[in-house]
Amino acid sequence: MGQFQSRREYLDALELRAGLPEGFRRAVASLHFTAPEMGAPDPMKMNLAAVVSDEPLFSFAGVFTKNRFPGAPVLLARERVRGERAQAILVNNKVANVGAPQGIADAEQVLKAFGDHLEIDPQLVIPASTGVIGWSLPVREMRQALPALCSDLHDGSLLPVAQAIMTTDAYPKVRSIELGSGRIVGIAKGAGMIEPNLATLLAFFLTDLEIPRYTMQSLLRDTCEASFNRISIDGDQSTSDMALMLSSGRRPAVAEHELQAAMIGIARGLADDIVRNGEGTGHVIRVVVEHARAEREAVILGKAVINSPLVKAAIFGNDPNVGRIAAAVGDCAGNHDIALDPGYLSIAIADEQVLAGGRFLLDSSKERRLSAYLKRSALRTETLGYPEHDQNVEITVSCGVGAFRAEVLGSDLSYEYVRENADYRS
Amino acid sequence: MGQFQSRREYLDALELRAGLPEGFRRAVASLHFTAPEMGAPDPMKMNLAAVVSDEPLFSFAGVFTKNRFPGAPVLLARERVRGERAQAILVNNKVANVGAPQGIADAEQVLKAFGDHLEIDPQLVIPASTGVIGWSLPVREMRQALPALCSDLHDGSLLPVAQAIMTTDAYPKVRSIELGSGRIVGIAKGAGMIEPNLATLLAFFLTDLEIPRYTMQSLLRDTCEASFNRISIDGDQSTSDMALMLSSGRRPAVAEHELQAAMIGIARGLADDIVRNGEGTGHVIRVVVEHARAEREAVILGKAVINSPLVKAAIFGNDPNVGRIAAAVGDCAGNHDIALDPGYLSIAIADEQVLAGGRFLLDSSKERRLSAYLKRSALRTETLGYPEHDQNVEITVSCGVGAFRAEVLGSDLSYEYVRENADYRS
Repeated sequence: MGQFQSRREYLDALELRAGLPEGFRRAVASLHFTAPEMGAPDPMKMNLAAVVSDEPLFSFAGVFTKNRFPGAPVLLARERVRGERAQAILVNNKVANVGAPQGIADAEQVLKAFGDHLEIDPQLVIPASTGVIGWSLPVREMRQALPALCSDLHDGSLLPVAQAIMTTDAYPKVRSIELGSGRIVGIAKGAGMIEPNLATLLAFFLTDLEIPRYTMQSLLRDTCEASFNRISIDGDQSTSDMALMLSSGRRPAVAEHELQAAMIGIARGLADDIVRNGEGTGHVIRVVVEHARAEREAVILGKAVINSPLVKAAIFGNDPNVGRIAAAVGDCAGNHDIALDPGYLSIAIADEQVLAGGRFLLDSSKERRLSAYLKRSALRTETLGYPEHDQNVEITVSCGVGAFRAEVLGSDLSYEYVRENADYRS
Repeated sequence: MGQFQSRREYLDALELRAGLPEGFRRAVASLHFTAPEMGAPDPMKMNLAAVVSDEPLFSFAGVFTKNRFPGAPVLLARERVRGERAQAILVNNKVANVGAPQGIADAEQVLKAFGDHLEIDPQLVIPASTGVIGWSLPVREMRQALPALCSDLHDGSLLPVAQAIMTTDAYPKVRSIELGSGRIVGIAKGAGMIEPNLATLLAFFLTDLEIPRYTMQSLLRDTCEASFNRISIDGDQSTSDMALMLSSGRRPAVAEHELQAAMIGIARGLADDIVRNGEGTGHVIRVVVEHARAEREAVILGKAVINSPLVKAAIFGNDPNVGRIAAAVGDCAGNHDIALDPGYLSIAIADEQVLAGGRFLLDSSKERRLSAYLKRSALRTETLGYPEHDQNVEITVSCGVGAFRAEVLGSDLSYEYVRENADYRS
């Protein structure tokens, strides 16, 4: 992973990295609205962004939140992804359109107006929204902004869209790869549930490589499973999460395993950017669980470690608290009936073995070394605007019962996290 | 629930409340030890406490942590609870004896010496420990303290034991009830995982009421399920949690349903004390989930709300953030395949309906009222030493799909929580 020296350098790299695959254009616009009755005190700014294909596509896929209280755009997008064709994605930030009185009708009005402008069947436009839960879309203002949006369609870079969909994100997130004679570009937004109700993870993948539709759906599902589903900022899955993929099919297909590896590579890069994004994040924690009975069990154990408030708070405080890691692993194994032999359990932090055969291997000089390691691994606030690097806290848990492994990524629990999540209205 | 005016008044009430049932005596002693090789810088103080029956008992029960990395005392106690008889509980604070190199042998040495002093078969002594994970018991110092402990056996009040087992607890926890011609007294320690590795929940119930042994085991299990298993400070289950019950059988039996109700009443009171205990706790949150398909599902949904860092941080900030509650419920239902109809989902905070039929019912004046309610419901630090009262944040979630309900109790997420869990070694 490259390390950038300045935000300018990072954005320049992203501009190139976000080059659109053949057959797509993009547009962005912004608007202002007021919503005093919803408790929004000042005029708010919303961004609208669109990705449009030159013609209706037959190859597209979507993966959606499993949250049982999904937003209107999720319900509509799910329906459209089951349709025969798709041609555009229309996305807004600021208002998630979840639990709003006329959520579906509002979204459909905006989609229809957008389709009319571009002479695209509104059924082929997939909506996505991110922002505050419970507020209604400012339909009138959004419709007024559509002419400006639709006159902004460009080739070139997808970076403006990656920027437009940001909410509390500290920086835009773009990853791409050249593959065969084509390319895949992915963008995402998400910063953990750091700002109230702005939880959403949105990810869009565009490619010009030919991919059969039925293949794409399972590729995208497996990609999300191996990337976004292995990170956790605070354990919550939002009402609006979605990943979409569109292919223009202009370039010949490549082997499926190459495609899968490329997509996972892009998505893992985006997932890494998301974890590293949070202003409240002091350390990025990578937990590798190995010698597990099944990959699924390794993922669950790893997530138990990165979701444990006690482990997270200890790492924030540069405290190599092995007891909490062991307790989190043991608790999770007990609750989920996961195979674990305490007599073979071992744990390492960085390259120091801290528990082996179920016994702690700690002394005061090792603790001092580990505390210094945690201090060195803290993120530096001055680089938060161009964050790509390998500065993780590395924790390895070996279950001693099998041959499977998994990696998960999470963040620590800081004062800043509490402040950002507690104080926004006071 | 009574509200006390001072710590003195609270302790006086506890002294009476903790009156020992017939047939039991108790003892406490303390000792000092050093453990520089384990990173403990100063001489540490440990309390030892014992509950002893006048003769071997045939009626006793134990419920233990499901953590797969349990401490040596849990392993030994599990074994002893399966035995034919029991006569005493020996408990220490400060060192949990989890993952220590010779944990089992160390504990057995102490039990044997204790048994020898009192001429009790050591197999009839049930051990319990709470404290730091990874450290070894100071066996020599503990053995030296046994003569003082064993010469302190008293009738009267169990309060000194409730005090001796405290670690980060802000106050001792005692609940009791008169039933038939006998009584039940319960004590507990636990303050959430607020101090590093001092996670443990210990609960001991003593009674003189005759209870058949096989009945007692299931009564105790159901009691824990309906009380301690419905609270959550931070979602972690410790390596050392245990609940034990002993009956001297000196008084005639009462009806089983009365007994169960009495035990649940005591255990819920103790559980309430534990949640209310944390120095880091700004608000106690009670979530009632109703109209669920099954009680088990209601419990899981309720715990998802009180374990959501976003909900907890919002309540700390007196922010009535309904979107986060709805998102936590929806996320949990999706992940656990729990029946929930978004079209019937409703949520209330105190007596204000904030979501009904899947739609938010919010306006700025309601938000102001709710924020004022949250401010009023904050715990007052000056009463932390005598905390019993009904000052909860009340959240009601109605699933609209069935007839079952459950209550769970949790705490908010505060700066103080992070500070206490991050800064202890720095």
